[in-house]
Amino acid sequence: MKRSLGAKRLVYPLPVLMVGSYGEDGRPDVCNVGWGCVSVSEPPCVQIALRPIRQTLANIRHTGAFTVGIPSACHEVQADYFGCVSAKQEPDKIGKAGMHAVPSECVNAPIIEEFKLTLECKVVCMHEYGSHVQITGEIVNVLADEDVVGEDGIVNIEKLDPIVVDPSADTYHRIGERIGKIFHDGLALK
Amino acid sequence: MKRSLGAKRLVYPLPVLMVGSYGEDGRPDVCNVGWGCVSVSEPPCVQIALRPIRQTLANIRHTGAFTVGIPSACHEVQADYFGCVSAKQEPDKIGKAGMHAVPSECVNAPIIEEFKLTLECKVVCMHEYGSHVQITGEIVNVLADEDVVGEDGIVNIEKLDPIVVDPSADTYHRIGERIGKIFHDGLALK
Repeated sequence: MKRSLGAKRLVYPLPVLMVGSYGEDGRPDVCNVGWGCVSVSEPPCVQIALRPIRQTLANIRHTGAFTVGIPSACHEVQADYFGCVSAKQEPDKIGKAGMHAVPSECVNAPIIEEFKLTLECKVVCMHEYGSHVQITGEIVNVLADEDVVGEDGIVNIEKLDPIVVDPSADTYHRIGERIGKIFHDGLALK
Repeated sequence: MKRSLGAKRLVYPLPVLMVGSYGEDGRPDVCNVGWGCVSVSEPPCVQIALRPIRQTLANIRHTGAFTVGIPSACHEVQADYFGCVSAKQEPDKIGKAGMHAVPSECVNAPIIEEFKLTLECKVVCMHEYGSHVQITGEIVNVLADEDVVGEDGIVNIEKLDPIVVDPSADTYHRIGERIGKIFHDGLALK
């Protein structure tokens, strides 16, 4: 039997994206964004959605750039903190979380050094619908900690240990065991 | 030390969305979409991105509606198959995968009965950038199997057992252990 749950945002999984930007005064900021995904393959783009009130949106409109840090399970408290507190309330959010920002060499946005993987993005378009502004950024480079990348250039997911969100229970989770291979396992049904 | 990996689509995690639609002839179709996320809170919307060549895009342009099924780990082979084969090659994809389509009661799109959670969506806007068309659908209802929902209306993630993708190794994974609570754990740093 099926049950109707109403109009809910139950997409599994939701990501935990750490969006880095510079304020007009040049101060680095980072916020926690759950509405985001790849939106274009060529050129490679990531889309994030922000409420108009968010400081990060004002920052991105000003600089035309942002970064997307992928937090690891060991950063769960900091990642949640970056969603609980605005730079308007706490200008030194990053320092308060014990983290460090350095300038990206590719775009006008900060890299949070502690995140093991960061996408460096320049804004290519924005749209607005309902409560959110959808911002598309072209990924011009990905910066990774040496120790999460193999010699083959493939990221080791166990070493990255990224976080996902359960949108119904509002909980953070690790990514678990590997169960199969893309564009491979389904061929058995062909 | 950090290493530049170039312009890659390394968003962690990627979802595995089973997008259901009707062809012009009324035949139900389903395809595997990895580029998708929540894009608006009010009204609740999901965005998916499709290449113009995909049959699902032609279908959605025709009907103005689609569903998003969330596959469970037990559906990994079928989910991958729905990404390997087009309805142009195999008109009875759904039957061939041992699955069954019934009409949504809310939108003009099919529900795949075997998926334990399905979002029922009507198209509200479309944009195109680069290789993909970004389609925003308002989620008008979510349909869930009774046995994955508690009395409190919260979905049980262990029973749903959804799949995520590792975009670097191109592998499917389960969602793993719970590590924290949203808008809660970060308050410790305040």
